[in-house]
Amino acid sequence: MNAPDKFASLLTLTREPFPASTKSAITSARRPDVRVPVRDVLLTNGETVSLYDTSGPYSDPSADIDVRRGLSSVRGAWIAERNDTEAYIGRIRQMLDDGATHADRDAQKLAELRAAASGLQRQPRRALPGRNVSQMHYARRGIVTPEMEYVALRENGKREWMAEYMADAAREKRLAGNPMGAQIPKLITPEFVRDEVARGRAIIPANINHPEVEPMAIGRNFLVKINANIGNSAVTSSIEEEVEKLVWAIRWGADNVMDLSTGRNIHTTRDWIVRNSPVPIGTVPIYQALEKVGGVAEDLTWEIYRDTLIEQAEQGVDYFTIHAGLRLPFIHLTADRRTGIVSRGGSIMAKWCIAHHKESFLYTHFEDICEIMKAYDVSFSLGDGLRPGCAADANDEAQFAELRTLGELTQIAWKHDVQTMIEGPGHVPMHMIQANMDEQLKHCHEAPFYTLGPLTIDIAPGYDHIASAIGAAMIGWAGTAMLCYVTPKEHLGLPDREDVKQGIIAYKIAAHAADVAKGHPGARARDDALSQARFEFRWQDQFNLGLDPDTAREFHDETLPKDSSKVAHFCSMCGPKFCSMKITQEVREYAASRGLAEEEAVVDGMAGKSAEFKAAGGEMYIPIQPAA
Amino acid sequence: MNAPDKFASLLTLTREPFPASTKSAITSARRPDVRVPVRDVLLTNGETVSLYDTSGPYSDPSADIDVRRGLSSVRGAWIAERNDTEAYIGRIRQMLDDGATHADRDAQKLAELRAAASGLQRQPRRALPGRNVSQMHYARRGIVTPEMEYVALRENGKREWMAEYMADAAREKRLAGNPMGAQIPKLITPEFVRDEVARGRAIIPANINHPEVEPMAIGRNFLVKINANIGNSAVTSSIEEEVEKLVWAIRWGADNVMDLSTGRNIHTTRDWIVRNSPVPIGTVPIYQALEKVGGVAEDLTWEIYRDTLIEQAEQGVDYFTIHAGLRLPFIHLTADRRTGIVSRGGSIMAKWCIAHHKESFLYTHFEDICEIMKAYDVSFSLGDGLRPGCAADANDEAQFAELRTLGELTQIAWKHDVQTMIEGPGHVPMHMIQANMDEQLKHCHEAPFYTLGPLTIDIAPGYDHIASAIGAAMIGWAGTAMLCYVTPKEHLGLPDREDVKQGIIAYKIAAHAADVAKGHPGARARDDALSQARFEFRWQDQFNLGLDPDTAREFHDETLPKDSSKVAHFCSMCGPKFCSMKITQEVREYAASRGLAEEEAVVDGMAGKSAEFKAAGGEMYIPIQPAA
Repeated sequence: MNAPDKFASLLTLTREPFPASTKSAITSARRPDVRVPVRDVLLTNGETVSLYDTSGPYSDPSADIDVRRGLSSVRGAWIAERNDTEAYIGRIRQMLDDGATHADRDAQKLAELRAAASGLQRQPRRALPGRNVSQMHYARRGIVTPEMEYVALRENGKREWMAEYMADAAREKRLAGNPMGAQIPKLITPEFVRDEVARGRAIIPANINHPEVEPMAIGRNFLVKINANIGNSAVTSSIEEEVEKLVWAIRWGADNVMDLSTGRNIHTTRDWIVRNSPVPIGTVPIYQALEKVGGVAEDLTWEIYRDTLIEQAEQGVDYFTIHAGLRLPFIHLTADRRTGIVSRGGSIMAKWCIAHHKESFLYTHFEDICEIMKAYDVSFSLGDGLRPGCAADANDEAQFAELRTLGELTQIAWKHDVQTMIEGPGHVPMHMIQANMDEQLKHCHEAPFYTLGPLTIDIAPGYDHIASAIGAAMIGWAGTAMLCYVTPKEHLGLPDREDVKQGIIAYKIAAHAADVAKGHPGARARDDALSQARFEFRWQDQFNLGLDPDTAREFHDETLPKDSSKVAHFCSMCGPKFCSMKITQEVREYAASRGLAEEEAVVDGMAGKSAEFKAAGGEMYIPIQPAA
Repeated sequence: MNAPDKFASLLTLTREPFPASTKSAITSARRPDVRVPVRDVLLTNGETVSLYDTSGPYSDPSADIDVRRGLSSVRGAWIAERNDTEAYIGRIRQMLDDGATHADRDAQKLAELRAAASGLQRQPRRALPGRNVSQMHYARRGIVTPEMEYVALRENGKREWMAEYMADAAREKRLAGNPMGAQIPKLITPEFVRDEVARGRAIIPANINHPEVEPMAIGRNFLVKINANIGNSAVTSSIEEEVEKLVWAIRWGADNVMDLSTGRNIHTTRDWIVRNSPVPIGTVPIYQALEKVGGVAEDLTWEIYRDTLIEQAEQGVDYFTIHAGLRLPFIHLTADRRTGIVSRGGSIMAKWCIAHHKESFLYTHFEDICEIMKAYDVSFSLGDGLRPGCAADANDEAQFAELRTLGELTQIAWKHDVQTMIEGPGHVPMHMIQANMDEQLKHCHEAPFYTLGPLTIDIAPGYDHIASAIGAAMIGWAGTAMLCYVTPKEHLGLPDREDVKQGIIAYKIAAHAADVAKGHPGARARDDALSQARFEFRWQDQFNLGLDPDTAREFHDETLPKDSSKVAHFCSMCGPKFCSMKITQEVREYAASRGLAEEEAVVDGMAGKSAEFKAAGGEMYIPIQPAA
């Protein structure tokens, strides 16, 4: 089949609902048009566990989705009712936006791609003259937007079922989290969200030109979020292919997605991604700007960069990574580093600064950038162009000099009511992680921290998703609001579909471990529900409550494929004779009533199970399969 | 081919030396028969990096190995020269030791298995009457044994090459580790090892009947070690199969291996494993004892258990997991737990205690057990039968009551100069991990801590090696001496060969992250060497210095298979235009000499690389492969 069909069918697969799961919604009492999606998992014991859901309409079988038309609007009416924006004739799209020239022999191919996306064209909106449409601006004027209400309902989820698992006061006291300075209320109110956004401690990335987004918050006092990166293929084959990557990432739990595309067709590809994305989309505009000047960093200009910001803001990008903290005077601080500058955007700007012997135009034009950001509500993700690229360079003067500058820029951004988060490392040994959080809180005034890992060691190429999940969990507990994932291919190659999934699962683990450690209300309830299912040998529930039900079921099937095993009161690991949980239950029964008859019954029962187990193979260890 | 041949050939594969690696040794100046193996990795720039090596003679192509004869002795002469042991007619082997009866129809098969292992039979040794042959006993009398000297050399490794990477004083000051109370000297001397063993802060598991072992230390002031579990197949097909599992585990870095076999042929299988193992072997004797009574916990007796201890001590098992801290009065403390008792040995003993309404015979006969341990130098691994099986049960009274009892037992063991370590959890959220270490240090008098994980969350079935590697790294930093691995199959099924590897790599990452955080001298040198190779685009060195060179190389090949790519000054992730490390090097050159010509040369060079990159695919993202 041809490419579009191929990926269309793949997209269908990717849209399959999770097992035993149904899409439902939490609707605001105040405004019925605020409907927050959740995934309800029906357990075999009749309970329902309701989970935070990032997958958007894609996991809803009843949703009619056409990637060539894009998702339906969630926020359109909310934006309109604020009466502070106008539709306008946007910037004229140029061949160069897609990295092509009119003379280009690929012009024909490009024209086709653009035609395919014609149904995704929207007339851009911007703030009316003199107006500021950022969520921070509203928050500071005391306005609780529908977006804030949406976020409040989303962060709380359905607390009813959680409460049942957190009912034991003594247990909750023993397990009380350590928020490490975070101040997480028992219940998130819309007013609390407004206050957090107003003081800059949280952001809601939501460009007015991305009405399809399902609002979410990034902040220390909310659930820890994760970001996944995707990028275009050199020869983009179809809308379906690009959108499928996005859908795959949010299916496994990506709260945000960054489009790191470079090269050809990036403007058109971005249309495809943004129009079909229910999660905020971030970009690094310098990548496209560099393409516009043929890849020669020295040829970059403020005008070309500014034009790129407007181009992407009109498309609906929700946050920009901007390396404005990498200043000319800091570059020499990297001279003695073992791995120098490892940020792509950072190294590009360093080259520009050195070549021109000038201060970075991102720094000198920062207030001009703020003017653009607040006209569309694009959030800053202030990039750490000088982050360490190995343990040996961690926490050095180059890194912290830039961090302090990001703090200064944060205050300028806030002067313009522009939402801002701060990017962080990178490569940091465990014992130096806390210092990163402390310095960030101290110099960046509690603006949300958004870190890449950090990787705790450098000797695990091929397993850096694990080496970094350790650091991510720790810095998430310390207060980092969003964790940028690392895939197993980091440092080695391009992540494929499976690598993306592996990276996301590793980071869902890190983020959840942080939520539990911080004592986020209800965070542990899902663990308790799964553990209860485990103790009661409800195998299906154990699989379905996990981060990846498919893999859990598959692993169980490898040893005990029979359906009967899915209700067996033991598993293949220990077998009935050694099943501690089974024995525990017997001990409890026995302790409860000293009836010997009952005890005998139990033993008989075990004998039965034992035969069953032996029939199933009865092995302590799977015979190894010789390679070839 | 038949099974033995099949696994013999697999064993050959498993014995392949690591790429660019040669086996070499550090020889003691004082006694030339103390020769510690290391793996020397030759880098493409001529440097040699020397690594700690757990793989034994198997990774030495010149070693003549016959698994039916067993490994040659390392310690035989050392044991003999102490003149405190005697060879004796050991316990008579019974059919029941292999879980069979004389009437058994499998008797024939068993006879064959035993015949196959006949070449592995050794006459057992034990301490002369009134003597104590434990390393702790020697240490307390001021004797520095060859084993202690071996450990000292092994912990230091070749410090010369490390020193080069740690030469920058300012950098080392910035990166200085946080030992969290550990006292790690700059150089480990044999006298330091003796002192640590004497005060019980470290153990050297080395049964006098396991002379094949390459001595290693488990202690807070030494490198963090990891343990891997293996177990027999229900129908053991051959010596080769069982030994291959062991060789596979130590190839990837297992410092210790526990044989958790149950069911048939476990005595004979143990002969195969111990005689062919260069690493200490641990067991849980209660498993075999339970087999001897047909799997009925209530039928266990002290006599049967004692007989099993002697049986295994004569075979050369280096440490026994003994759940002597699980006392009758503690069992009711588990009644309100979410997952009760999850330790197999623990639940068996709990059942026995409840059934008989008696105190555990492991507790009442603890001093009798000590008498056996010191006659063979078997070390205690005091089991945590009441460890939590889910986050909700973490750090509860049942767990800590048992831990305090393990502390009492430690002092009794030390009264007999018996080496002792303490087993720990299990399932513990991040914020409750430190308390486990604090309580253990407080109540167990700094005896080495040996933890399973801990798992930081419960919702990651299929990925528990990651959920637990986070906890393992943290508790390793806090002072845990050995980490028991968890595989991706935990809670679901039986680990296969690949699962074992995945579990071990995850735990090597955790252990190394802990060593770096503690500031173990030289620990970071390997990271620096790899990062330097990365910055200098020495791809082969980057692969070969990693924990798993095969996977790293394979991942790189997936995107850029050509050999030329292995020297390319960029990789597939960013390409030449966006390669930060390449740009950094240009910036440095440029900054060094302002010569425009040179700068142009660089740009020309990039153009060349750029073409090369485009030819190689030039993609930012691998096209996704639709699932069938």
